[in-house]
Amino acid sequence: MSVTDELVAANESFAASFSGGGLPGPPSRHVAVVACMDARLDVYRALGLRDGEAHVLRNAGGVVTDDVLRSLTISQRKLATTEIVLIHHTKCGMATFDDDAFVAELESSAGERPAWAPGAFADTEQDVRESLAAVRACAFLTHTDAVRGFVYDVDSGALTEVT
Amino acid sequence: MSVTDELVAANESFAASFSGGGLPGPPSRHVAVVACMDARLDVYRALGLRDGEAHVLRNAGGVVTDDVLRSLTISQRKLATTEIVLIHHTKCGMATFDDDAFVAELESSAGERPAWAPGAFADTEQDVRESLAAVRACAFLTHTDAVRGFVYDVDSGALTEVT
Repeated sequence: MSVTDELVAANESFAASFSGGGLPGPPSRHVAVVACMDARLDVYRALGLRDGEAHVLRNAGGVVTDDVLRSLTISQRKLATTEIVLIHHTKCGMATFDDDAFVAELESSAGERPAWAPGAFADTEQDVRESLAAVRACAFLTHTDAVRGFVYDVDSGALTEVT
Repeated sequence: MSVTDELVAANESFAASFSGGGLPGPPSRHVAVVACMDARLDVYRALGLRDGEAHVLRNAGGVVTDDVLRSLTISQRKLATTEIVLIHHTKCGMATFDDDAFVAELESSAGERPAWAPGAFADTEQDVRESLAAVRACAFLTHTDAVRGFVYDVDSGALTEVT
């Protein structure tokens, strides 16, 4: 039995007792959260979110890429969110390697270079600041006045704001 | 008090009773989940995931973009995941608009066209199939034999596999 099979079985139990249907698509709390894909960060529990309340965007690092700006633009213009929360975290895998070396590894292994930059970073707080700036500079967003950034401590569960 | 302030306050309560520290970075169940950002889908609860078990990637639609391939490549090569689960869902906002009209709206409003395609789709199952194909064709991934795709029903909580 694969892990995917186990997740499907867990979902059958979840669905059997599910009573949360009928919610509208636009998030009821009008907020979008952008976070790292890290397995130790359960965004819903860590922020007290319930079904239907917030968009949750996640990628490697929680960095603001074109795909994040695409998703945030749809979130604000089509689904009425107005606030944005960015979350990086301590002990991030993105701080354990170097972009140039990783691209060289990929080229050696796959015979081609990726179209994307890996996005590794050494300074988590500085990367949050760069992500905040990228969101605020996006011409397609309609709400950039309520954008805040945080670092999540994977050992304490606490958020610390980056200003 | 903004919604962001409320989330920060909720996190203070969460951290006060947090006892899950000390987990390693690589996901213990070696799986990465790619899902839509939709507010009605709490990936951890819907799949029975606990802290530290899986990478969770999310964007508008759950579509496989360059940023998703970047994140999956890092997930597999740097953090040892081997299985991939793709999740789209019923009643998706991405099925409510048209790419060309949305790009025209953005150009009219912001005075420039986005570098990204919005990624709207009319047929959810077909978009899952295209996402499966995009993952399987990615030269940078080391494990493409265990990639499966599903549609989550936001009203019943149940996953249905797309084959």
